[in-house]
Amino acid sequence: MDFNYRMPTRVFFGRQCISRNKDFFARLGRKAFIVTGKSSARASGALDDIEGVLNEANIKYEIYDGVENNPSLNNVEEAGALAAKSGADFIIGIGGGSPLDASKAVAVLAVNRMEAVELYKNSFPNRPLPIIAIPTTAGTGSEVTPYCILTRPDMQTKMSFGNDETFPAAAFLDASYTESLTRSVTVNTAIDALTHAMEGYLSKRSTAVTDALAAESMEILGECLIALNNGEISPGTRDKLLYASMLAGMVIANTGTTIIHGMGYSLTYFKDIPHGEANALFVKEYLEFNRDAAPEKTDRVLGLLKVESTQQLGGVIASLIEEKPSLNGEEINYYADLTMKQRSTLSNIKTVSAQDIEGIIRRSVKQL
Amino acid sequence: MDFNYRMPTRVFFGRQCISRNKDFFARLGRKAFIVTGKSSARASGALDDIEGVLNEANIKYEIYDGVENNPSLNNVEEAGALAAKSGADFIIGIGGGSPLDASKAVAVLAVNRMEAVELYKNSFPNRPLPIIAIPTTAGTGSEVTPYCILTRPDMQTKMSFGNDETFPAAAFLDASYTESLTRSVTVNTAIDALTHAMEGYLSKRSTAVTDALAAESMEILGECLIALNNGEISPGTRDKLLYASMLAGMVIANTGTTIIHGMGYSLTYFKDIPHGEANALFVKEYLEFNRDAAPEKTDRVLGLLKVESTQQLGGVIASLIEEKPSLNGEEINYYADLTMKQRSTLSNIKTVSAQDIEGIIRRSVKQL
Repeated sequence: MDFNYRMPTRVFFGRQCISRNKDFFARLGRKAFIVTGKSSARASGALDDIEGVLNEANIKYEIYDGVENNPSLNNVEEAGALAAKSGADFIIGIGGGSPLDASKAVAVLAVNRMEAVELYKNSFPNRPLPIIAIPTTAGTGSEVTPYCILTRPDMQTKMSFGNDETFPAAAFLDASYTESLTRSVTVNTAIDALTHAMEGYLSKRSTAVTDALAAESMEILGECLIALNNGEISPGTRDKLLYASMLAGMVIANTGTTIIHGMGYSLTYFKDIPHGEANALFVKEYLEFNRDAAPEKTDRVLGLLKVESTQQLGGVIASLIEEKPSLNGEEINYYADLTMKQRSTLSNIKTVSAQDIEGIIRRSVKQL
Repeated sequence: MDFNYRMPTRVFFGRQCISRNKDFFARLGRKAFIVTGKSSARASGALDDIEGVLNEANIKYEIYDGVENNPSLNNVEEAGALAAKSGADFIIGIGGGSPLDASKAVAVLAVNRMEAVELYKNSFPNRPLPIIAIPTTAGTGSEVTPYCILTRPDMQTKMSFGNDETFPAAAFLDASYTESLTRSVTVNTAIDALTHAMEGYLSKRSTAVTDALAAESMEILGECLIALNNGEISPGTRDKLLYASMLAGMVIANTGTTIIHGMGYSLTYFKDIPHGEANALFVKEYLEFNRDAAPEKTDRVLGLLKVESTQQLGGVIASLIEEKPSLNGEEINYYADLTMKQRSTLSNIKTVSAQDIEGIIRRSVKQL
């Protein structure tokens, strides 16, 4: 039994967790720089709650609300320059995966003069500013991971950086911020969380601790998928989705993701398919491909999700998401090549070739 | 669903984890102060391993090997003064619960001019030095908790302090250091770990995350108790005991302990009964007392431990430990009063009175 484990992010979970823990903020400094997208931070109520506790604690703040979906290097460079100018003591990220990931890049760039592309060196002269992460979706897990995934036009894909210093110092998880999400965003992000737990569990880097967390996450997500399929999204389901998503984040913070994410990035980059939906497309074929390398673990995944077979799971997921995209043979080959270039592909429990990936993609989409 | 969760200690687990992660030490500074007991650090091989990596990294060090069993305020005051004089950048605790707990007090006292009794204020002008914790027993969990439990003759009991700043920065868990333990120390410390998981699980402060960790811990400890009862202590069992003990430490780092520990402290203070053995005596009556407040959780504890009833569990534990101690009525009443003064008693899942505690103690010992 050999493993390393780390989870330095402090978690505050529950309705009104920000106002109930307002004393925490005063310890962080006198000025905050808030990183968010155009509307969800305000619409969710999270930004109002944060402004309330910052004002009460006499902490000044500036807001950057220009984070794009799937943020680019240019996008975080702009925000990082503004953060540096602001003299902030800490960064607050509010939103789905895009703003939370961006907040990590901003925390580095606020105190390090470097181009955004140098973030991928993953080593920073000055320690990044402390990050407070407030998710408004239940799926990314970014609030408890060190990862920042940015779009790299130079490499035609999304790619992550992150080290021990880019873990958020604290995460505030209040499921009320997810109540205003549409059904399709709720479903997509839930399946993103499911793929985190599943890929971490079926990773060469899985450990005893991450398996325990992944199992807990999958068991709860299994209940949530049933509820989502029945069309019910009660406040209790919202709490469970946010909790399971956080657990899955704790898993990948230690294991990383594997080929589902690697394949999914191409569908997002080239076809603009939302991240969770892109991942969802591959779940069934991914499990069937890996099965012979980890038959017991695969069966446990199905058992935790309360389905009889990979076919049944595929059916549940298919009923929840949009139609399959259509790809031609050239596209499939190219996406497979890009997947093979992702470092995380090496961690898949079964060693994969480009041909294996092509096969999984081909079986998962409509081929033109 | 409302909870806070924190686990800032970085974990390195596995045989040779110190030498395999030697680069970690260079980041901590130029001088270490090692806190340990008279012999176990050397006998276990842990001290040799640490000296090896420190020498290789050109890190100077001083060794304080005077930690007593159940260390007193005077004991840590002496070590703290030497640490302050040494100019160390970080503290390394090596040993069972006593040296690991003492290392936390030393980390505070090395950089704060205060009497040891002021540690109980739990707030320190200067941030304690970073602590590296290396357990040589599998039970305390101290390597992943902020707690330091010291003997207070002024209050005739043991009492803990600890805050976010006294979590070890890192824990190195190598089960080979536990191979030289006697059977009775192995058993006592294993039952200490079991009571951590059980008390955390049956605490008013239990949360979803700590319940998942506690369940994993109890399931593994159940397998280990069977092995210990069969007289087998294989290297694999040593690994499992150390892993389960660490998980149980992560639980109580968030929930604290409850009445088993509160009652056990008196048996250690007045009767010199080892900590784990003291706790072991109360397990059966503790579960029976709490059952009506948490019937489902109690059944799950028994299920995870693979026993049919509290009686059967009591039998397994009784077969592993020394004979029951004899107490007179006055002693029982006094120990119950002391237990009621422990803050952690408030967290027991069933609210308790002094009479309840008296009853549990009376049924657990031989009454004179």
